[in-house]
Amino acid sequence: MNSSKNDLTRLAIHTITTKPWSLEEACENYASRGVPGISVWIEAIEGRKTNDVKRIIDRAGLEVPALVRGGFFCDPSPSERACKIERNKGLLASAAEIGAQMLVLVVGAVPGQPLATQRDWVREAIEKLLPTAEQFGVQLAIEPLHPMYAGDRSCVTTLGQARRICEQIDHALVGVALDVYHVWWDEDLDLEIERIGKRGELFAFHLCDWRCPTRDMLNDRALMGDGCIDLARIRAAVHTTGFEGWEEIEIFSTEHWANDQSVFLDQIIDRYQRFAIDND
Amino acid sequence: MNSSKNDLTRLAIHTITTKPWSLEEACENYASRGVPGISVWIEAIEGRKTNDVKRIIDRAGLEVPALVRGGFFCDPSPSERACKIERNKGLLASAAEIGAQMLVLVVGAVPGQPLATQRDWVREAIEKLLPTAEQFGVQLAIEPLHPMYAGDRSCVTTLGQARRICEQIDHALVGVALDVYHVWWDEDLDLEIERIGKRGELFAFHLCDWRCPTRDMLNDRALMGDGCIDLARIRAAVHTTGFEGWEEIEIFSTEHWANDQSVFLDQIIDRYQRFAIDND
Repeated sequence: MNSSKNDLTRLAIHTITTKPWSLEEACENYASRGVPGISVWIEAIEGRKTNDVKRIIDRAGLEVPALVRGGFFCDPSPSERACKIERNKGLLASAAEIGAQMLVLVVGAVPGQPLATQRDWVREAIEKLLPTAEQFGVQLAIEPLHPMYAGDRSCVTTLGQARRICEQIDHALVGVALDVYHVWWDEDLDLEIERIGKRGELFAFHLCDWRCPTRDMLNDRALMGDGCIDLARIRAAVHTTGFEGWEEIEIFSTEHWANDQSVFLDQIIDRYQRFAIDND
Repeated sequence: MNSSKNDLTRLAIHTITTKPWSLEEACENYASRGVPGISVWIEAIEGRKTNDVKRIIDRAGLEVPALVRGGFFCDPSPSERACKIERNKGLLASAAEIGAQMLVLVVGAVPGQPLATQRDWVREAIEKLLPTAEQFGVQLAIEPLHPMYAGDRSCVTTLGQARRICEQIDHALVGVALDVYHVWWDEDLDLEIERIGKRGELFAFHLCDWRCPTRDMLNDRALMGDGCIDLARIRAAVHTTGFEGWEEIEIFSTEHWANDQSVFLDQIIDRYQRFAIDND
């Protein structure tokens, strides 16, 4: 990977990172700084027609690594699970319509059900989405979430669990989204990155940092370098697999959202560049 | 294990659970309900002489499973680590003086250091504590904490990691404190309980529940039955090992602390009894 100071060619930013901005503002500002990628959160395009969304993104000359986020497959009721699958078919269509390469899947969890059972539901749901994913040519990226979300957001809490679901399904459109925030603590992380990379199933690499102390379980992520994650080691492991995808910045932060988003965007780019240079 | 409605013979409560109460109030109230065990948090006895503490506990006729909590071994500086070991020697003495069976170890973590390196520091520190633990006849119980604390509280986040440290040290006074709150999400949980049980290294079993949604990373634990943890399954796995130790209630909860602690204590006992009956 090119490590020159100005190389932003693989940088993408998730719209949630600059949540106070409209889609138009995000597109304009990212493009004006030379950021070529935008991953689009469904909340950022709610109530809009996807062709309008595509036009806004295209006008800014941006590419779309991902529509974020589908999934939430888990429910004890089979008919409810069927509804959730239908909803995800719609999201695959939307992803294709806005030109997104993949749909990121936060797989869901419901209290009171064995996590292993829920992971079976996830596998079944993804299998049922395959024809639609093929039809639209959109990848499905399983994102393991931190175990602090195992109760009600994600029964998949490690890269190993995501990998095993991928192995069971064994389809070119099914892979993994690695977000350092969720998996940095896992002693098997490097090994699993290697395994997933070998199978060609590492689809996405999300960056931020883990603030110490973390004051909120949802919206207290840090800028790269402001937390305790060994980003250099993880990035090296990712690059060793031959990964050439996007490096996506995804920061939920009440603190940063309260600041001027233009200043914040400059900080993101500065940190990303320092981070890339320090570690290439 | 006897499952009659009134069987509280293995029930202990951690003083932090009824934090608003003084040690005297906790002892009186626990004893008056027939709760035979009290695990003592160091904050509850700060500024007191240990023989006074022992007298208060003895007067109530209570036993002390644990002094909670020692550890916090991690620091990049060897001299700082030596200080931390000295501090834990003092805590072992205090544990013996108040009649505690074990010292629970929250092992610590510092941002910016590889977690594997930090786990080596933990092993080294515990090895250096062995002569003191032997002198006082006090057990050292490594408590894995939830991965959400890996940044700054505990480099040991799974039972498997705790077990491996125990295996490396291989000493009758070194074992594991299993708190369901920290490890419930782990797919290897049952397997690790079996492994640790076989080695005779399961020293403590802490109970509470994981609230959905959890609103705070420190002080939002739930009463057994008010969360998503499969307590029945975990308790069965623990009992299958032949574990005959205490069942300790440890609930940090701003919400419950704001209520009448007598009412809360009655709720704890009711839930514990229902839980024991449902699952024996």
